[in-house]
Amino acid sequence: MAAPIDFYFDFTSPYGYLATTRIDALAAKHGREVRWRPMLLGVALKATGQPPLPQIPLKGDYSRRDFERSARYHGIPYRTPTAFPVAMQAPTRAFYWLHDRDAEDAKALAKRLLQAYFVEDVNISNPSDTLAIAGGLGHDAQALQAALEDPAHKERVKQEAEAAVKRGVFGSPFVFVDDEPFWGLDRFDQIDRWLATGGF
Amino acid sequence: MAAPIDFYFDFTSPYGYLATTRIDALAAKHGREVRWRPMLLGVALKATGQPPLPQIPLKGDYSRRDFERSARYHGIPYRTPTAFPVAMQAPTRAFYWLHDRDAEDAKALAKRLLQAYFVEDVNISNPSDTLAIAGGLGHDAQALQAALEDPAHKERVKQEAEAAVKRGVFGSPFVFVDDEPFWGLDRFDQIDRWLATGGF
Repeated sequence: MAAPIDFYFDFTSPYGYLATTRIDALAAKHGREVRWRPMLLGVALKATGQPPLPQIPLKGDYSRRDFERSARYHGIPYRTPTAFPVAMQAPTRAFYWLHDRDAEDAKALAKRLLQAYFVEDVNISNPSDTLAIAGGLGHDAQALQAALEDPAHKERVKQEAEAAVKRGVFGSPFVFVDDEPFWGLDRFDQIDRWLATGGF
Repeated sequence: MAAPIDFYFDFTSPYGYLATTRIDALAAKHGREVRWRPMLLGVALKATGQPPLPQIPLKGDYSRRDFERSARYHGIPYRTPTAFPVAMQAPTRAFYWLHDRDAEDAKALAKRLLQAYFVEDVNISNPSDTLAIAGGLGHDAQALQAALEDPAHKERVKQEAEAAVKRGVFGSPFVFVDDEPFWGLDRFDQIDRWLATGGF
């Protein structure tokens, strides 16, 4: 089996969320697995000198309209959260804590967190909301709470975000197929052909 | 017949160029015509506070790769010009000068200019190169040269660019279908469905 695809996203990114509903099926179609790598967009924006998308004049207003229209186009449930955009340390730390135990469990937690944020308007950047959701899936909320506050784990998650930027990740979603970089849900058609043909 | 589609692009924009090879056929499929409106990306970037795409760390490097890969994906001849990006006053002024005489001639000139820039590596930001190409198509190069230097015509072209920004145009290509805005060649699939269904 060929190497897994690396899939980067930030928990506050609407395009990242939309992509999480598609990436596994796209990869599976070509016999590939996917490594989910949540990152912190703030670290990437600092490296590129860019403000958050919603704050950019004209482009910010357009993007809100485009988030919703793109979700409708792809038939994915979506509403722009009330708290948006937010810094997503809590869910990102929860993901990697669980990932060290079971990668599939971590992926399932990420999906549930994203649904809470982008469909049910729960502000998962609050540690208490992330903890409640993880607890609801049967994970040890007390151990997770300790991890969310553990300096070593915080540092590890920050290093994951910095490693992503070092690799060239500047936005969400961002995909590597055998080191070929693809930015955005709107490159999934190119990823599909790349996986089918081995490059073009 | 429904109202024409408004199609904005900057002559130095690779994604704009790729879109010029597709927009008329896409519109015609749905019985629509297209009004080509070249604009000046510099005016839009000033309004959004953004640097030119190639200058943004990480994103700039990615974009060069993506220009070429997207051209291959769509089967469109392309090479990143040696002089890139550049301020495209000369070809933009030439377009509107000719447009006042014949809209279809102006479109044909734009296509020839873009081919020169993005396929033959001619720096059409030089007035002499734009003039030579217009002359080669049988247009009055002497009258065009006067227009390129005419303060009133310069001002008119600047106002076209400012009107685009006022309407919300912040990048290239940018399309309005009945006031619904679409940014980027990668929204052409959404435009296709929008034209087919009247909105979604």
